[in-house]
Amino acid sequence: MKLPRLRTLASLFAAAVLAWSPAHGDEGMWMPQQMPQLAGRLRALGYEGDPKAFADLTGFPMGAIVSLGGCSASFVSPEGLIVTNHHCVQAALQFNSRPDRNLMVDGFLAAGRADELPSGPGSRVFVTVAVEDVTAAVTGDIPAGTTGRAYYDLIERRQKALTAEREKQEGYRCTVSSFFEGLRYFAITQLEIRDVRLVYAPAAGIGNFGGETDNWQWPRHTGDFSFLRAYVSKDGKPAAYSADNVPYRPKHWLKVSGRGASPDEVIFVAGYPGRTARFNTFESVRETVEFSLPRTIRRNVEQIGILEKVGSGDPETALRVSTRIRGLNNVLTKTRGVHEAMVRGGVLGQKEDSEKALLAWIAADPSRQSKFGRVITEIGALNAERIRTRERNLLLAEFAGGSGALGAAETLHRLAVERAKPDAERDPFYQQRNWARTRESLDRLQRSLDRKADRAMMVYNLSAIARLPAGARIEVLDRMIGLSAGQSESDAVAKVSAWVDRQVAGSKLYDRDFRLGLFEKTPAELTGTGDTLLVLAAALAPLQEEIRNAAKDLGGRLARITPVYAEAVLAQAGGLVSPDANSTLRVTYGTVKGVESRDGLMYLPQTTLRGVAAKATGTGEFNAPAAQLAAIKALRGGKATPFADARLGDVPVNFLSTVDTTGGNSGSATLNARGELVGLLFDGTYDTVASDYFYDKVRTRSIHCDSRYMLWVMAEVDGAAHLLREMTIVP
Amino acid sequence: MKLPRLRTLASLFAAAVLAWSPAHGDEGMWMPQQMPQLAGRLRALGYEGDPKAFADLTGFPMGAIVSLGGCSASFVSPEGLIVTNHHCVQAALQFNSRPDRNLMVDGFLAAGRADELPSGPGSRVFVTVAVEDVTAAVTGDIPAGTTGRAYYDLIERRQKALTAEREKQEGYRCTVSSFFEGLRYFAITQLEIRDVRLVYAPAAGIGNFGGETDNWQWPRHTGDFSFLRAYVSKDGKPAAYSADNVPYRPKHWLKVSGRGASPDEVIFVAGYPGRTARFNTFESVRETVEFSLPRTIRRNVEQIGILEKVGSGDPETALRVSTRIRGLNNVLTKTRGVHEAMVRGGVLGQKEDSEKALLAWIAADPSRQSKFGRVITEIGALNAERIRTRERNLLLAEFAGGSGALGAAETLHRLAVERAKPDAERDPFYQQRNWARTRESLDRLQRSLDRKADRAMMVYNLSAIARLPAGARIEVLDRMIGLSAGQSESDAVAKVSAWVDRQVAGSKLYDRDFRLGLFEKTPAELTGTGDTLLVLAAALAPLQEEIRNAAKDLGGRLARITPVYAEAVLAQAGGLVSPDANSTLRVTYGTVKGVESRDGLMYLPQTTLRGVAAKATGTGEFNAPAAQLAAIKALRGGKATPFADARLGDVPVNFLSTVDTTGGNSGSATLNARGELVGLLFDGTYDTVASDYFYDKVRTRSIHCDSRYMLWVMAEVDGAAHLLREMTIVP
Repeated sequence: MKLPRLRTLASLFAAAVLAWSPAHGDEGMWMPQQMPQLAGRLRALGYEGDPKAFADLTGFPMGAIVSLGGCSASFVSPEGLIVTNHHCVQAALQFNSRPDRNLMVDGFLAAGRADELPSGPGSRVFVTVAVEDVTAAVTGDIPAGTTGRAYYDLIERRQKALTAEREKQEGYRCTVSSFFEGLRYFAITQLEIRDVRLVYAPAAGIGNFGGETDNWQWPRHTGDFSFLRAYVSKDGKPAAYSADNVPYRPKHWLKVSGRGASPDEVIFVAGYPGRTARFNTFESVRETVEFSLPRTIRRNVEQIGILEKVGSGDPETALRVSTRIRGLNNVLTKTRGVHEAMVRGGVLGQKEDSEKALLAWIAADPSRQSKFGRVITEIGALNAERIRTRERNLLLAEFAGGSGALGAAETLHRLAVERAKPDAERDPFYQQRNWARTRESLDRLQRSLDRKADRAMMVYNLSAIARLPAGARIEVLDRMIGLSAGQSESDAVAKVSAWVDRQVAGSKLYDRDFRLGLFEKTPAELTGTGDTLLVLAAALAPLQEEIRNAAKDLGGRLARITPVYAEAVLAQAGGLVSPDANSTLRVTYGTVKGVESRDGLMYLPQTTLRGVAAKATGTGEFNAPAAQLAAIKALRGGKATPFADARLGDVPVNFLSTVDTTGGNSGSATLNARGELVGLLFDGTYDTVASDYFYDKVRTRSIHCDSRYMLWVMAEVDGAAHLLREMTIVP
Repeated sequence: MKLPRLRTLASLFAAAVLAWSPAHGDEGMWMPQQMPQLAGRLRALGYEGDPKAFADLTGFPMGAIVSLGGCSASFVSPEGLIVTNHHCVQAALQFNSRPDRNLMVDGFLAAGRADELPSGPGSRVFVTVAVEDVTAAVTGDIPAGTTGRAYYDLIERRQKALTAEREKQEGYRCTVSSFFEGLRYFAITQLEIRDVRLVYAPAAGIGNFGGETDNWQWPRHTGDFSFLRAYVSKDGKPAAYSADNVPYRPKHWLKVSGRGASPDEVIFVAGYPGRTARFNTFESVRETVEFSLPRTIRRNVEQIGILEKVGSGDPETALRVSTRIRGLNNVLTKTRGVHEAMVRGGVLGQKEDSEKALLAWIAADPSRQSKFGRVITEIGALNAERIRTRERNLLLAEFAGGSGALGAAETLHRLAVERAKPDAERDPFYQQRNWARTRESLDRLQRSLDRKADRAMMVYNLSAIARLPAGARIEVLDRMIGLSAGQSESDAVAKVSAWVDRQVAGSKLYDRDFRLGLFEKTPAELTGTGDTLLVLAAALAPLQEEIRNAAKDLGGRLARITPVYAEAVLAQAGGLVSPDANSTLRVTYGTVKGVESRDGLMYLPQTTLRGVAAKATGTGEFNAPAAQLAAIKALRGGKATPFADARLGDVPVNFLSTVDTTGGNSGSATLNARGELVGLLFDGTYDTVASDYFYDKVRTRSIHCDSRYMLWVMAEVDGAAHLLREMTIVP
């Protein structure tokens, strides 16, 4: 396939001269194509290279940067060796764990290629090979009156066509993504490697050292690194797992720095940040702060409690729910931090001030006034419409998707319905291009599927549904369970509980073969099995369809306005702004730097092995392995290591930087000015969590694992000498 | 009375040249007389004054330094105005509080002299006027074979005689205190002012801002300052409270600095540190770590739980137990910190190393060997003897003293028994010189006395006593309650509970007049009242007497050895060592300095109003008053204040220093090189809590309230302009 030529965004944005203070962090998860425009800022930070290098996705270093779908990673050897975060290989560790062999706790090191373990169904490595501006093809030539559902469907149809065209050659995935609230669209084409194997993960006492206690915290001492390897067929094409597959040979891979990163050094992070919402209006952010975040906090606390109770005293169930609990905890901590920063940290106020400034800028000029004057009000009116059925819709989605087997039933049912349509008319998620992945997810589900957990989550969600007010009821459930508005709590709970027992007991979806065997069935065949959860999924489908259609209509109307809003924001800022994160490849830059986190309290830029030893308790979240503590003792006793920092008198462990990152950046390569891997991005400080909504130039800090800590652990603790030999380590 | 001439300790200690690193804090709560010997160290820190000034207790600045008995304070006006910590006037605030007027929460400001409130019975201001070396008079001329009880009694008799001689003139108190484990004795004579009045305390939202959450923590933002005034009779003599009394006119008072303290500045803290145990042997410190601290932690947690439960739903009881809960919490936090520092922070290991070095130094020389060779072993043998009955003795003392009314009964009984003896033969605490204070304490007891709390604490302690093993039983209680070793828990609890109910119900000691009316009764008259708790106190007395006698015998034997141990420590160190704190006047010096508290985390040396605003929640422990938040806002809005720091761009609130302090130092004046008051010492960091046992040169930090914060609050928040005018504020 001839891959489309890469174009830059340079034509899109006017050059802008911005006030620049080196004491402050610099906002921006930049599209690689925007990097050349930042040459001035980068020079001010001491970068002497050519920023154009970042714009070439098939060159160095960007050719080495990959996505794992949710996490970022990078090639570090010509033999397809990939480094990412330890927390990004959790699913692979869980997939390969048994009650008597818990890789999530003990870690794993393949002695050689033959010992590398399949990462489990659905594991992927995506290598971005092209980014094209397809704005005209998506939004060009549309009659002015087209809006609502018609507009939504048209945009979706055009995206599907662009995607299909680019996926004709096997082994490539294309995504047509919106940038700047629908102002621009880009088609991103990626090589999709499907045979991914687990090579090395340190023990949880290193890779997850500090656990939930240290999550989002500083000082931090987490060795959050692990290694995978990409495999392809013998002819070099992406292929499903096969013993005959061979390591993928990337065009570019990163050299690993044996000198790590030092304070005030300029660094770059290249990866796939997931979602930010900095283009949201103030009203929308306020909804987040006043409704969504408190709701998430409450629900996550409740769900963690339920799942922990379900897992207590039952090691198998505990293992199956562990990843979900970890995920809920991570979101909970982050959500609490966002909420606190928004309210007490004043970020919501900053957002309000920023929107006021935008409104004043619009009001100051009649031509701006006529173009942008009503846009924020109109967006607000559409959001108000959505809010009317918000709670009911959320609860229905959470009920249907919140328990593993019912979620599978819903997926199978929708797939069966959509399969009957021509592919181009299917819901994008259920198009044929996604069937393999959907099947894999139904397979992968096995490791977390648990009747007790499902039962508890269904009761939990239905108890909330039972409390919905008259006028916002879910009638199909009322009918099936015998619920009604104003019913007594105890009556409702008793009915829900007995009904859920019957649904869970009457389903065979917990059986992997039964479940996968339904993959190509029709809706009638599915309900014909008499499986209770499949019957339930079919019963819920009409209301779900109605909700989706309403959302598409609203989405179509919104999509007519939000690009205008984005235009105003861009114009006000002089043009050079980075778009909100959307899981596409981005580059952010900054410097290694500490921060006065609170009045009187300074986060120093680096931590060291001293801190690991001080925190180690030999148990729980701070369970540093005995081998590591022995290695630290040997170091104290005078044993030499090339990975110590002379100024610190110790091996650096983690460091802080001003780079602007978010979830999805996990595992991202941290590069120095020479493009060498000096660390792995893995977290942000608690002060940073609200930066998804508003970037704080003073306090935003990302947390990285220093490459020297990774190399020291590999050399001195885990005996991974063969991997050290495979990588190119530069002094 | 002609006061004895002050002598210096210079003859005692050989001049010593010690390695001095300005990056490290300097150990030592020095006797004022030792200060001239530290001239070299002080010059290295940038002090250009004459350290001899500190040795003159009746000169400037030491003449302005006073003790409140448990806290330190200083005169800040010629009219007897005294500044100390907010937490040192808690009892005065509680004494003057009613359910509808809670000064502990709202604070207090007297509009003029006539509005100043009596601080309550037992409030004192002590002005040290003389310190004499009386070692020869206490330990000279004793036959070599005298030891045990005989030695103990002889030392006590001599101390009493020295004390009596110095207290002939009314209005003075004398204490003969042991320094260096009985190696030296000094007679300390103090003017005792008995009419102390509450002048000004900010609201708890300033004075106790941060509460238990911030206790021992940094960053800190506590306005821990309050003002008292000393009153005397019209002829200038100490006198009980009287409306006719007039303000005391001290010879010296401190000027208050409007420039506070700045990083790296040399400062001095003058005050009355309570107790340290740095001369304890390693074995004794180990007992503390392995037995005493865990026991205190467990018991305080339990007692706080009991008292909180007792106070919940009953505001009057809650008010009465609040000071006790605060005290238990403070000790609990500190004890946990000490334990953690000892074990995980490695302080116990440092102590062990230090003792090993002492043993090696002894072993290295035959003459040292013959003098000091067995001293640590012998101290260990005596401690082992004490440990045999340790738990029983502790529980009995905690039972008898742990509930207010039973404690009063015990005091009244002992007083009656001792009163029958000639004064010189009485237990020192029950000598006539202490009767007035004892009576006041029985009076002051009223504000915390509570039947429900007493009942709960008696049941708590007796439940533990019921579990004592055979052979270590308290037979009198077994007999009275019907307890025995091996009895079932439920049976014991039932018996204890019913018995305690009868004891508490049968006592009138909760009545203030009844209680004070018993002050001069004989033992027979006391038991003749039939009051259950008085009868109980009499029943417990024989065993308590037996325990005291055994302790005196052991004390006498120990007193023969510990001075030799202290001599070894002093000689090994070259002579210049400060003695353990013993509630006598000391001076410590250091610099204003931050610290890397943990790997990667730096405590900056100062906090500011920014941090107050950031922590303020409007409720609970961070309830900054609205007036304060408005004043901060006005400052942000451009309002000028002379108390802002140009470098910080804000008013400094608290600061850290390397000075070596401990409990009892609370309220101590922090002085700059000119002797101006730049702050008040009020706490130490959590890293510092173990310094009572072993001083950590790197991490020890004391926490002070900057004088600028105090002045700013007085001027801008509380409207205390008249007090500002009364003090001399120097730019």
